[in-house]
Amino acid sequence: MAATVVCPSRNVEVVCESVQVTSAGKASVCVLGTGLIGGSLLRAAVGAGYDAWGFNRSPAGAEAARRDGFDVTEELSAALTRAADADALIVIAVPMPAVGHLLSAIATYAPRCVLTDVVSVKAPVAEAVRKEGLSARYVGGHPMTGTAESGWAATDSGLFRDAVWAVGVDEGTHAEAWTRVARLALDCGSVVVPVVADEHDRAVARISHLPHVLAEALASAGAAGGALALGLAAGSFRDGTRVAATAPDLVRAICEPNSAALLAVLEETLTVLGAARDSLRADNSLADLVEAGHDARERYETAQRWEITDIHPGDHNWLANLRDAGQRGGVITRLN
Amino acid sequence: MAATVVCPSRNVEVVCESVQVTSAGKASVCVLGTGLIGGSLLRAAVGAGYDAWGFNRSPAGAEAARRDGFDVTEELSAALTRAADADALIVIAVPMPAVGHLLSAIATYAPRCVLTDVVSVKAPVAEAVRKEGLSARYVGGHPMTGTAESGWAATDSGLFRDAVWAVGVDEGTHAEAWTRVARLALDCGSVVVPVVADEHDRAVARISHLPHVLAEALASAGAAGGALALGLAAGSFRDGTRVAATAPDLVRAICEPNSAALLAVLEETLTVLGAARDSLRADNSLADLVEAGHDARERYETAQRWEITDIHPGDHNWLANLRDAGQRGGVITRLN
Repeated sequence: MAATVVCPSRNVEVVCESVQVTSAGKASVCVLGTGLIGGSLLRAAVGAGYDAWGFNRSPAGAEAARRDGFDVTEELSAALTRAADADALIVIAVPMPAVGHLLSAIATYAPRCVLTDVVSVKAPVAEAVRKEGLSARYVGGHPMTGTAESGWAATDSGLFRDAVWAVGVDEGTHAEAWTRVARLALDCGSVVVPVVADEHDRAVARISHLPHVLAEALASAGAAGGALALGLAAGSFRDGTRVAATAPDLVRAICEPNSAALLAVLEETLTVLGAARDSLRADNSLADLVEAGHDARERYETAQRWEITDIHPGDHNWLANLRDAGQRGGVITRLN
Repeated sequence: MAATVVCPSRNVEVVCESVQVTSAGKASVCVLGTGLIGGSLLRAAVGAGYDAWGFNRSPAGAEAARRDGFDVTEELSAALTRAADADALIVIAVPMPAVGHLLSAIATYAPRCVLTDVVSVKAPVAEAVRKEGLSARYVGGHPMTGTAESGWAATDSGLFRDAVWAVGVDEGTHAEAWTRVARLALDCGSVVVPVVADEHDRAVARISHLPHVLAEALASAGAAGGALALGLAAGSFRDGTRVAATAPDLVRAICEPNSAALLAVLEETLTVLGAARDSLRADNSLADLVEAGHDARERYETAQRWEITDIHPGDHNWLANLRDAGQRGGVITRLN
């Protein structure tokens, strides 16, 4: 990582400068949006020794963060001008519908900063970044963590500890930018899963967006049983509907931008549930559903992460190699 | 409860003796089946001061319980003869498919004992009890608790603490028998929800059996995404699939005997999910699903249990009144 290397790719050719910032301690970080994820990231980054500040469009939200001792402004241009001056890593931490507005301001005030995001889908963000001409220094990100709460009051510097943080390895990704983003994820206590945008979006449709959809449907089915059913509800209903407590606008902002991938897995699930219904009706049997589900849960419980140690950003084929390792369950736990 | 009262009902007329056992301390309890629920019940009953013993058909299972100091035999006739001699409350704690065999033995060895069960459905058990001629002293029960584990090794005397325990108030229920069953539930740390069998079965289809079905489908959808998807999975997938870790035979034994009610709510849920799919495809919107689901979860979170204090077993119309109170969210927390 200390040497200057050439990273050819199909889309762009970039020269990876020797990595001053990442090898010499902590860069500055500018977090745009200080809700649950962004605010927790600001807390974690400051805790890890970064010079970090934030922006929140709501004066009340910014004030709440300032009262807790964090440097948060409601002036977007001020936050971004400071980021440009400090060569800060900019983190977009707002729901997908608000991303375009921030990107437009970044293109105006801080177009040369390394840029990442913590949005729940990656291809739509990458497309919006491309439209603003900011792709060269963009690296997608997605920490797989959260709670049903939202807003500054719910923030927690430990939110990312032992979490998985997806970091984009799409073609054309700049090695220095990638390293800065991955290092921030590691410094917040997460492990890094390298993944390209489309594969990320298909995966999270399965393990994040479908769980939201099923939780909403289950909650409705339970409540339709009235006080008796809700009064009898125990652990399986409580856990199965937990994420239905998330604010509706936030659930929609998470799921709807990933509609193509979500539609595919929802269709698949309707087929599985329809077959279970047919089997229960015809043969009074849920055998196929239950055996497949149990096997699947066991695969989840026994899935082994393994540490990627031999692929370094900037190496020949590093993006393809990291992508392949991520597909096979590899994670990065440290950077040299 | 101390007086002799006459409890007329459409099906039977019984004279409720003055309740010696429940007013004068703890009765004996014979638990048939010492897996997760039955074994935990044996532990809790002993802890609460009952003279309690158990039966387990597996010599190894019985031996495991004996090693922990509990009085468990693999001789069913011995356990039941002792129950008959002690006028014990018999608790059937095996999955539905094994209930018939136990009832047949009870009819032979202990036909006059008060009888309850902790099986996950109530109408099929009541029907099996009726076929054996044991209805007069039967009271259905269902503690709404459990874990994904099973067997004696998973038993826990605290399993019922702060849980809800459904106790049947079907027509013809004997007040003394009912009181003994409710008192056991309370002594194990639960609150009692009075409910008739059919309404219980429809309610648990919504809040217990459908969660199992959706968890199995979600687990399969996640695992179909391979190591990448399972590696990115976080809280929503973990919680949404938790009960898919339950042994397949047990899930089937829980859900399949309730197929009519489960089919109805599964059909309802397929309609809801199909509408969500259509709305996502046509309008890129999950608004209806998400808003209804969030409202439903909020109803669950804010549902208030209230204490039933003015209805006493044996009172005029006590069964109908308890049923009505249970439908409206009432629970019994103590017996006079």
